[in-house]
This record gives sequence, C-alpha cells and structure tokens, in this order.
Amino acid sequence: MEKIFNPKKNTWIEILKRPTKEFAEVESTVTQIFSEIEQFGDKAVNNYTKKFDKAELSDLLVSEKEISDASNLVSDNLKEALKVAKANISKFHESQKVVIKPIETTSGVICWQETRAIEKVGLYIPGGSAPLFSSVLMLAIPAKIAGCEEIILCTPPDSKGKINPAILYAADLVGITKIVKAGGIQAIGALTFGTESIAKVDKIFGPGNQFVTTAKQVATKYGVSIDMPAGPSEMLVLADSSAKASFVASDLLSQAEHGGDSQVILVSTDKDLIAETEKEVEKQLAVLSRRDIAQLAIDNSKLIYVEDVDTAIELSNEYAPEHLIIATEDFEKVALKVKNAGSVFLGNYTPESAGDYASGTNHTLPTNGYTKSYSGVNLNAYYKTITFQKISKEGLKNLGSTIEIMAAAEGLDAHKNAVSIRLK
Amino acid sequence: MEKIFNPKKNTWIEILKRPTKEFAEVESTVTQIFSEIEQFGDKAVNNYTKKFDKAELSDLLVSEKEISDASNLVSDNLKEALKVAKANISKFHESQKVVIKPIETTSGVICWQETRAIEKVGLYIPGGSAPLFSSVLMLAIPAKIAGCEEIILCTPPDSKGKINPAILYAADLVGITKIVKAGGIQAIGALTFGTESIAKVDKIFGPGNQFVTTAKQVATKYGVSIDMPAGPSEMLVLADSSAKASFVASDLLSQAEHGGDSQVILVSTDKDLIAETEKEVEKQLAVLSRRDIAQLAIDNSKLIYVEDVDTAIELSNEYAPEHLIIATEDFEKVALKVKNAGSVFLGNYTPESAGDYASGTNHTLPTNGYTKSYSGVNLNAYYKTITFQKISKEGLKNLGSTIEIMAAAEGLDAHKNAVSIRLK
Repeated sequence: MEKIFNPKKNTWIEILKRPTKEFAEVESTVTQIFSEIEQFGDKAVNNYTKKFDKAELSDLLVSEKEISDASNLVSDNLKEALKVAKANISKFHESQKVVIKPIETTSGVICWQETRAIEKVGLYIPGGSAPLFSSVLMLAIPAKIAGCEEIILCTPPDSKGKINPAILYAADLVGITKIVKAGGIQAIGALTFGTESIAKVDKIFGPGNQFVTTAKQVATKYGVSIDMPAGPSEMLVLADSSAKASFVASDLLSQAEHGGDSQVILVSTDKDLIAETEKEVEKQLAVLSRRDIAQLAIDNSKLIYVEDVDTAIELSNEYAPEHLIIATEDFEKVALKVKNAGSVFLGNYTPESAGDYASGTNHTLPTNGYTKSYSGVNLNAYYKTITFQKISKEGLKNLGSTIEIMAAAEGLDAHKNAVSIRLK
Repeated sequence: MEKIFNPKKNTWIEILKRPTKEFAEVESTVTQIFSEIEQFGDKAVNNYTKKFDKAELSDLLVSEKEISDASNLVSDNLKEALKVAKANISKFHESQKVVIKPIETTSGVICWQETRAIEKVGLYIPGGSAPLFSSVLMLAIPAKIAGCEEIILCTPPDSKGKINPAILYAADLVGITKIVKAGGIQAIGALTFGTESIAKVDKIFGPGNQFVTTAKQVATKYGVSIDMPAGPSEMLVLADSSAKASFVASDLLSQAEHGGDSQVILVSTDKDLIAETEKEVEKQLAVLSRRDIAQLAIDNSKLIYVEDVDTAIELSNEYAPEHLIIATEDFEKVALKVKNAGSVFLGNYTPESAGDYASGTNHTLPTNGYTKSYSGVNLNAYYKTITFQKISKEGLKNLGSTIEIMAAAEGLDAHKNAVSIRLK
C-alpha cells in the first residue's frame, strides 16, 4: 500500500486519479451488437448468449417452475436475512415519498409538482463470480414502491442456461415476474430496442462491467435513460485516533474484494493508525477466500496522512468517493462538511457492508467521481417529476402584462398573443 | 394541418413519430472541436467563435462595464417584468426544498438522505433570432437557491462581440457574475474540459440546437453530467367542447413560432372545435412577425379527433409531450391521468406562455418523448442526494447476522468480516 504524508494540495488531483477506461474501443463492439439486436431481436440476443455465456437457451424468460424450484435451493437462514433486508430497504425507500405542496406564486396562479412512476424499467443484475441477489433487492424494491408498470430483470445465465437460485428467490420475494436470461451488451440492447420477448424500456438501472457500462451509455443515444454511468467500486475511510485499525482494515478489505480494479483509500490524521491498519490489512487479507482479487486492489490503494480533519474532508470531497466511512470522534460535525459522496457511514459501528445489504440505504451508487453530480439510486430515480399550473381568469389578469412584455422583448408575438386574446 | 379521425391504436406510434435527428454526423464534428479545446483551451474556443459567430474577441468574459452598460439599454417595463418573473420562479423553486426525514429501519440503525448543491454548473443560453433572457432566469435561479458555488453562463456573442443587453441584465438580476462569450460546441467543450478562463464544470444545463445537444451528449463521456437531451420544442393540446378555438389556436401558434421543427398537436373530442381551430390558426398566423417559421411548424402539425377524453389522454401519454394543455370541462380529473408530460397547463386561462415566462414553473423541459423518463429542470437538478447511515453498537448486534448471512451467500467474506470483527 502506498503511503503518502501531507501531500500538497496541487498534487491531490494526481494522487486521487482513477485508472482510465477505454470507452472508444468497447463502443464499436456495442454498436455492432446493438444493430444486430435492432434487426433480429431475440435471435441476436440468443446468439450472443451462446457466444459469451456458452449457454443455448430454448426460452429467454425464466419459467414459473424455475422460480418455484429455486425456493427449495435457498437456505432458510438466507431467506430470513433477505426478508429483513427487504423490510429495511422498503422502509427507507418508502420514507422518500415526496409531498405535493402547491404554491400560489401570484394571486390566482397556482403551481405544483407531481411525481409519476417511469412506466417501463429494465434492471440489470451482473453474473460472474458472486451472485448479487442483494442488487435485486436494491433495484426492484424502489421500482415496486414507485409503481413502475413493467419491470424487466435481466441477468446472464450460466453455461447450463440457469440463473442462481438466490437471485430468482430474491426477485420472487419482491414481486418481479419477468426475468430474462441475458447479460452483457445483448441484455442492454434488448432493453433498448425491445425484442419479441422483451419490451423496450424507458430507463435502465444496474451495475455491470465495462461492456455493460458502455452499452448503457450508448443506449442513451436511442431514447433510453440510465441510472448513472457505473464503474469499479471504491471507498474512502476518513479516520482519526478514535478509529480502530482492525475495523478500518476490515472495511478497506470489504471494498477491495469486489474486484482487482476496486479502489480503497485511507485518509487519517493519525500516523499510528495508518501503520496499524497496514499490518491489520495484511493479517486479515491472508485468510480471505477472495484474497487474490483483494490483493490486487490493495496494491493500488493509498494510505494518506494529513494534519487535520478539515484537510481530510477537503481531500475526500475532491476524490468524491462512492462510499465514505467517517470514523472520527466528532463524526456528526464532519458529516456536515461532506460535499461529494454516494453513501456515508458514520462512526465505528457502521461498516460499509451494512449499506451493501441491509441498513436500508441503496447500494447502487455513482463511482469514478460522478458523486459530484449524480445521486445514487433512490425512489426518485424511478419517478419523473411533472410540473402543473392552473391560472384563473383573475390570475391571468394579474400576471398577463408581465408575460406580454417579456414575450414581446424576446420577439415572440404568438406567445404574447396567447395571453392578449384571453384578456380581451 | 393534417386532420386524423379516430386513429386506430396500432397506428398511434406512426402518427406520433417525431422527425429523426442525425446524431452520428454531428458527433464527429463535436469530437474534433472537443479535442482542440482540450489541447489549446481559450485559443481554440476563440478560433471557433471567430469561425461560427464571426466575432473576434479580446476577452472571453463579459466585463463589469458591459453589464452596467446593459442596464441602460433595457426598458423599465421589461426590468419590472423580469423582477415579477424572478419572484415567481424563486417562490416555486424555493418550495421544492426537501425535508430530511431520518428513519430508524432497525432499532439502532438510522438512515437518511441529505442534498448537497452540485459545486460547479455551466448554464447554456442559445443565441440566434430571439434573445432568450427568460432561460437565464430559469437556469440561474434554481442554481442560486441550491447554492452552487460556481455558476458559469455561456452564450454566443454577435458578430461585434456583444451579448444582448436583456440577457446581461437578467444574469445580473439573479446574481450571475461569470458570463462567457462562447456558444455552440465550443462553449460545451470549454465547460467540459475547462480552459484558462473557464472552469471545468460538473453539470451542464440549457437548451440548444442539434450541435449543442450532441455536444452535451458527448460531454457525458468525459465525466460531466447534463440536465437532459434537448430537442425541438413541442406541445399537445387536449381539448373538449368547453375549449375556445381562438385560445387553442393561439397556444398552437405560440409553440409553432419557436422553430420550423417545432411540433404542435391538437387532440379533441369535438369535431367543430377542430374545424374552428384550423380557421383560427390561419387567421392569427397571418399577422405574426414570425409567420414564416410558424407556418413551417403548422404544416407538420396534426389535428386528431378521438371519441372520448380517456382515449385522448392515453394518446397524449403515448406521445409524452413537453407541454400539455388540458382544456376540458373536468381538467382536474384528466390531470390525474397524465403519465408522461413535462409541464401541464390546466383550463382555459392557463396559456403555455405563462409557464415560459412567469408562472413560476421551469420552462427547461424534456422533449422528443424523454418525458417518459426525465424530469424538467427543477431545484433537484442542481443537487445530488447523499445517503447517510449511523449504526450504534446495539444496532449492529440487531442487524449483524442478516449482513453476515447475505455476505457469506454472495461469497464475500471480507464483507462478512467487517461485521464479525466489530461484534467480537
């Protein structure tokens, strides 16, 4: 782990640089696959599933039998845990419902906002080494609360054409009925253009590797919106002498085990904590089942010493981490100074993994510095907001001349006339 | 105007089709200009301003003197109107502030959301035939309310290097101090990469032609986010026999005068209203200063008869208009059935131009069907939402096993360990 002491401010951007991605290279592959899906629909999706996932499918959709079979393959323990997680995630996302407050801006002129669910959404759940059933809960629960009419979940099958039972169980638990066996670029393409068995959606959600991420970005050219551009997971721990090295190390490692390209940074005002954390990381790492992956991420990680907590939070805001743990004595005060972060974990007993699974917050968060302008997935991500206005005859009399003067000054006569003709 | 009676549902998509845009062609121009700006900064911006706007600039930034001079060139009438509009827009956007509601999802586990202003935002105001000072108010007022730290307004100069005084006055009125004389692709490029005199921003807002729109979309590849993909303006009027043909015609024309590519659609349950509106359009059009532009849009517009209001609103939801006027007897009931629209105008005395200028709602709205998944610009567009969680020792005891079981089942030992080590 690279240790950096008191870095000068003009070096921060360089120190905090993330590895670059090659967007252009992947983009031409995406464009090619998209054009085949647009033309040939399900057939093209199946061809790519055969090519990339080595699976030959008779049906793109998961059957009811597969879902009921899955339930028998999931342990009671895990079922119970999923129910607790579901309850907490539901509670937190329910609490995000907005209240409509009509405002009378001028006498007789009433304005307000209303939210409406996005009608058709696609949820992407990656395959790969870990079956991310937790992401099923995170993406589907707010979609159900918002009331999206069509929710389509895509996830790649294994080479036998099967989906992990825990993913199927989680989907069933939250009421998802349409599960498509497709992953990668072909899944995003199917959701973008629609095929015989998959509806064209309005918005695509979910994490994925660089192929999925690029495909989502390209999809925005075709009238689909996306939750956010995703990237490798990352965490910054901000700690003073009140933090415990063993806890900090366990948090850094929980992020590091996601992938070799994950990034973890410790910023601390305590040199001893830095030294102890480094030792603890080594100790805990040795016994992890995913130690090879975690080691790669740890090799790229940084331990940064700064003189005070104010500098530490400023540096964190510059990095704009996906996950931010604040383990300082006065964490409540430091929290107020957070400008850019996806999800923040306060104090010594709030591990990041709590947010990954069950505290109730969403774990689908912006990475790669995008927390500077994007929010994580929340209830609002499944809604769009529509403004309404209702003006009485009296109200138009009050506001009319303002509109007429401005319209005339912009040279837009017809805009003016729409008022004048009503006031006559 | 094309008249369509009782179209079958399977023809709706075809009838409601918008003209397609050529994204790919413009994209290569954008990429070229962006790469020059990334390399040569201000110099490249100035070169393109000379090329496209025919202006040779000594300074990219508007000076204080230019702003104070502008005030003398704006009529008192217009100043007063701008102040009324500012007050209403401010009131409505202030009312959109969210309340933080912490939730205890499990005993000892507290979760909440907080909003933070996006630090650096770029606001784009098009040049061209109409000086859109109203867009200055619409984009800058919520940015100021949100508390964005750096707000940069870009707008193209005329061939003498000047900006319209009403735009400068409006910017000054709402407290914008940094105004850049740059438009088109070069302005978006400067905001994306930053130059000597323009800061790299986190998010770009504002309308524009297809060059600006494509540039904004390309900018998202470089870590910048955007308000929405913009397109030609559009309106759908949903009217029954309670509507007045002259009012409806004035609204259709106010939309049509924006540009030859604007789209206006009347959907009505009253054949007489359709016939009268057509006559009224002809009559009112004849005396408009922008009649040539409006005529082009009117030529492409549609008058659609359907048998009942339910069918009308269903058709409107399929079209997903930017602006929707509901002029029916029971407009309150119909409003509840709106699924997709940017801004909705209720009753006979709520012309769309009220929302363009002064009702208080924002006129920066999604077009081209994007109201299916995007919101218009509102206060929320200048914030990102950060989730926080704070777990007590007791709370972690309550939730710990849920996290441990799920982490283990996803094969993520280190995630489990971050809990186990704390519970020891």
